[in-house]
Amino acid sequence: MNPSMNEAPTHDGELNARDQLIDAASQIMRDGDTVDLSLSELSLRSGLNSALVKYYFGNKQGLMLALLERDMRNIVNSLDALVAKDFPPDEKLRVHIRAVIGTYFRFPYLNRLLMRMVRDASPEVSRKIADDYLLPISHAYSKLIDEGVKKGLFRPIDPQLFYFTVTGAADRFFSARLVLHHCYGQSEVTEQMRDDYADHTLDIIMPGLLKRPD
Amino acid sequence: MNPSMNEAPTHDGELNARDQLIDAASQIMRDGDTVDLSLSELSLRSGLNSALVKYYFGNKQGLMLALLERDMRNIVNSLDALVAKDFPPDEKLRVHIRAVIGTYFRFPYLNRLLMRMVRDASPEVSRKIADDYLLPISHAYSKLIDEGVKKGLFRPIDPQLFYFTVTGAADRFFSARLVLHHCYGQSEVTEQMRDDYADHTLDIIMPGLLKRPD
Repeated sequence: MNPSMNEAPTHDGELNARDQLIDAASQIMRDGDTVDLSLSELSLRSGLNSALVKYYFGNKQGLMLALLERDMRNIVNSLDALVAKDFPPDEKLRVHIRAVIGTYFRFPYLNRLLMRMVRDASPEVSRKIADDYLLPISHAYSKLIDEGVKKGLFRPIDPQLFYFTVTGAADRFFSARLVLHHCYGQSEVTEQMRDDYADHTLDIIMPGLLKRPD
Repeated sequence: MNPSMNEAPTHDGELNARDQLIDAASQIMRDGDTVDLSLSELSLRSGLNSALVKYYFGNKQGLMLALLERDMRNIVNSLDALVAKDFPPDEKLRVHIRAVIGTYFRFPYLNRLLMRMVRDASPEVSRKIADDYLLPISHAYSKLIDEGVKKGLFRPIDPQLFYFTVTGAADRFFSARLVLHHCYGQSEVTEQMRDDYADHTLDIIMPGLLKRPD
């Protein structure tokens, strides 16, 4: 089913409705601590006819892929740009870890969505997700760790395992709200908590990575 | 619907069928990188009539709670026993982190299941999950960190944030298989990888926690 004449979007409207649907999906995942989308909730949240999902994205999976692209593309590009810059690798890593924690604070569903798509999509789409996001990030980690080791700053560590460490640390915001609510009576994860957690994570991770004098 | 006469379990059989259903749920979650259970798959995997879920657990959520109890009870008890022991707090923490990584390697769905139950259950059940598992773990972390700080071994760190760090590190096995498969052509997470990852995690975390000389 295509949008009826009344709903037929102008060029500007087209961009808007498409982005509105992606935004609504993002908000549902964020607020609900879930990566499950129902078309009726999407329609309610966006104020748009859920038939537009088919029109713009083919199906729900297409919408989820578009959301993934919106959130992941930026990470991959920023990381590549950071690695290429000319300042010390330990400083690059600090900037990167803060950025990852900031991203997962804004989009706490991101890692779940990525893994859900890799798991459920067709082999071709999974391959494309891996090629577009996972492999570039993996290569950037190798390059960054290698640079730090060559400059005598980092212990030689496995970049693949280190990628798990960083993602693991950042991925906490997905369930943090639930733990905080039920254990500590806090109702939300604030920007102050994000910053405290970033400081904490850097304090914990960096000494384990940096080569100690002697 | 209750089991028919033919299926009516003996006392021994009762234990068996109940445990078999819990085991089957655990395997489905582990193999499928999911915490979604379908009754038909459960029936297929366990070789048991899915009506037994209602008989033993009331409903699917009851089965998921029983699985959570099986996997979490052990963690909480071991952690309490460890904290009470009389050996240095840094050594306790190393033992604990290895144990958590070992547990998540065996039950990679565990954190997702815990959060799913806290999110979806009734307020009373969520409260009970928090009281039974989350709060005791949180208290044990406070006690352990406090002991290390008092003995001059640990920097003073926030035990709540540190709990996120450790769970985050251990929680990687849920998606690790997918990343490894698509990025590195590896087909499974082996015990060797688990041990390497535990070594790596301790190498990264401990220096950030331990007070350095001067």
